[in-house]
Amino acid sequence: MKDLNCLSLRVKNNQLSILDQTLLPHEETWREIGSPEDMVESIKKLRVRGAPLIGVSAAISLALFAQTTEDRQLIKKKGLLLRDSRPTAVNLMFCVDQLLGLLDEDMPLEKIVEKAEVLFDEDVKLCELMAKNGNKVIEHNDRILTHCNTGGLATVGEGTALAVIKEAHREGKEIKVFVDETRPLLQGGRLTTWELTKEGVPYQLICDNMAAHLMAQGAVDKVIVGSDRIAINGDFANKIGTYSLAVLCHFHNVPFYVAAPYTTVDQECETGKDIPIEQRDPGEVRGQNIVEKGWAPLESDVYNPAFDVTPAHLVTGWILDTGLYNQQDVKQEKLRQLN
Amino acid sequence: MKDLNCLSLRVKNNQLSILDQTLLPHEETWREIGSPEDMVESIKKLRVRGAPLIGVSAAISLALFAQTTEDRQLIKKKGLLLRDSRPTAVNLMFCVDQLLGLLDEDMPLEKIVEKAEVLFDEDVKLCELMAKNGNKVIEHNDRILTHCNTGGLATVGEGTALAVIKEAHREGKEIKVFVDETRPLLQGGRLTTWELTKEGVPYQLICDNMAAHLMAQGAVDKVIVGSDRIAINGDFANKIGTYSLAVLCHFHNVPFYVAAPYTTVDQECETGKDIPIEQRDPGEVRGQNIVEKGWAPLESDVYNPAFDVTPAHLVTGWILDTGLYNQQDVKQEKLRQLN
Repeated sequence: MKDLNCLSLRVKNNQLSILDQTLLPHEETWREIGSPEDMVESIKKLRVRGAPLIGVSAAISLALFAQTTEDRQLIKKKGLLLRDSRPTAVNLMFCVDQLLGLLDEDMPLEKIVEKAEVLFDEDVKLCELMAKNGNKVIEHNDRILTHCNTGGLATVGEGTALAVIKEAHREGKEIKVFVDETRPLLQGGRLTTWELTKEGVPYQLICDNMAAHLMAQGAVDKVIVGSDRIAINGDFANKIGTYSLAVLCHFHNVPFYVAAPYTTVDQECETGKDIPIEQRDPGEVRGQNIVEKGWAPLESDVYNPAFDVTPAHLVTGWILDTGLYNQQDVKQEKLRQLN
Repeated sequence: MKDLNCLSLRVKNNQLSILDQTLLPHEETWREIGSPEDMVESIKKLRVRGAPLIGVSAAISLALFAQTTEDRQLIKKKGLLLRDSRPTAVNLMFCVDQLLGLLDEDMPLEKIVEKAEVLFDEDVKLCELMAKNGNKVIEHNDRILTHCNTGGLATVGEGTALAVIKEAHREGKEIKVFVDETRPLLQGGRLTTWELTKEGVPYQLICDNMAAHLMAQGAVDKVIVGSDRIAINGDFANKIGTYSLAVLCHFHNVPFYVAAPYTTVDQECETGKDIPIEQRDPGEVRGQNIVEKGWAPLESDVYNPAFDVTPAHLVTGWILDTGLYNQQDVKQEKLRQLN
C-alpha cells in the first residue's frame, strides 16, 4: 500500500499507525496497529472514532491484511470482524463492504488495496465538498454551536460539521463556536477544543446542559452537527445529545444543520427507526474511564446509549458533499441513490 | 446552642461539623467549621450545598459566632459575609436576614441562637409538607426524571424534589428514577445516586444529554426538580440544565414540576429576569476538579453558569410546603406573601 497520512492515521512502509484519541488533548501518542483484531480493539475503545474515519481505518486495516495472505476466506472473516466492531455508524459497513464486494467478485487482492487507498483519498475530497457546501449557510458573526467531534479527528479530511466551521473561519468570516463537551466520552471537550485551538477559531467550551440557556439568551445563531447514519427519509443518528439539541433549536427557532458525506446515507435504511443504537459500558457514565473508582457509586445502574436519532422534521438542512438539501428535497427522496 | 443532627450537618457541644459533599460518594468525611469564614469557604467550594441547607448552615454558623462575642457590629459583619457567599439561592439571604433582623432590633443574642435552631427545625417540617403535597402528583409505576441533588444532602430534612420521590417510594408506589448526572459538578451522579442507593429506590444514572432520547421513547412520565429561587410570577432559577429539561418536557408533553419551600420564593423578585446567575470557575468544565490537568486544553475558553432560569409557562406545577400550585394559581399571584 502507498504511504498515507492524515491528522490521526498514517501508513508508512505498510505499517498502519493511529493517533490514540483517548489520550488527547494532553498526550499525542501514536499506536501501531498490527492486525485487524488490533484495529477492532482500537475502534471499540474509541482510540479511532468518527464515522468516516472508522470506515476508512477499517478498510486500510483489512487491505494491509490482504497483502499478507492469499487466503480469501480468512480475509473475508477479518472483514466481517471489522464490520461488526461498532453497530451505528454506517460508513464502517459501507467501506468494509466495498472491499468484501471485490473479494466476492474474485478480483485480484491488489484491487482491495487500491480500493482502500481510493476510500482514503475520496474522504478528503468529500470533506472539501461538504465544507464548501456548508459554508454557504454560515454568515459573518455567526455564533455556531456544535456537538461531539466532527473534524480532522473524525475523518481523513478536514471533517464534516467542523470542516464547515473551519472553512468559514479560513474564508475570513468572524465566527464563534460553542463546543458541547459531549458526555460521557467528552469528544467535544477533549477533541474539538484541541482542533479549534490549533486552528485559531474562537470558541467557548460548555457542558451539554448549558446549550438551552444560551439559546434562551439569543446567543446561538445556528447548530451544526455530524452524523453516523442518515436514513432515506432524512432521520439521522448521531452522538447522544444531538436529538436534545434539535428539540431545543426547534423551540428557540435556531436553524439546525447536519453535515455528512454521501457514504453516511444508508440506502438500506428507510427511516430512523431502522438504525440500531449502540449501548456502551456503564463505567463511562460513572466516570470510571476518567478516575479509577469513578464519581458515582459503583453499584449505580446506568443507561448509556451512544447515539440518538433525530427525526427529519427537526432538521433545517442536510449538508452533503453532493449539495445542500432542505426539507422539500428530502421529502422528494433526493437522498435516495445519491452516489 | 442545642445539639442538632441531620444527614450532612451536626452541632454537638456548640461545635458545628459538616459532611464534605465534594468527597461523596466514596468518602464520608466530616469537617469541623470553626468560624463564619470557614463556613463561607465551605459554601463557596460546595462542601455544603443545596439552597435550603446553605441557608440553615449559614444561620447556624452565625448563631454560634454570636455565642462567642458581644460585639454586635462584628456579628453583623460576619452575617453579611455569609450572606454574600453565593448569589443565586435566596434561602441564604432569607435565613441570614432573619438573624440580622433580630440584631437590628437589638434583641438579646440568645434570640439569634434560638432563631437558628428554629430555622433548622422548620426546614425538617417544610420538607415533610413538600413531600406530602408532591406525593399527590406521583402515580404508581411512574418513571420520574430528576436533576441535581435535592434530597437530604440539600436540606436539613428529607429534601425538596427528592423528598417527594422518597415519600412516594416509602408509601409503596413502584417508581423508577432517572438521575441526571448534572454537569459540571455531578451532584446527580455523586449525591442523588448515593441517597437513592441508601433508600433503595430503583434508579438509572444518565448523562444530562440523554434525557431527550428517553422522552422520545416515552420512558419518562414526569420530571421533578428543586429550585434556588422562585419569582412571584413563577419563573424560577435552578441548577444549570433545568431549563433544558423544561423545554424538552414541553416538546414531549411530559409534566414538569418544581418543588421548594416557601423560603425559596423571593418576595422581592417579580420575574426570573431579576435573579442573578452565578458564573463559576472554568476549571469545573475543563474537568480540573476531577483530574489534575482536566480533560480539555488548559487554554480553553469556558462558559460556566451555575444556574438557569425556567419561565413559569413551562411549569406544570409548583410543589410547596403550603400546597400545590398550578398555572392559574400562579397567575393569580398566589406565590405573593405566602408566609
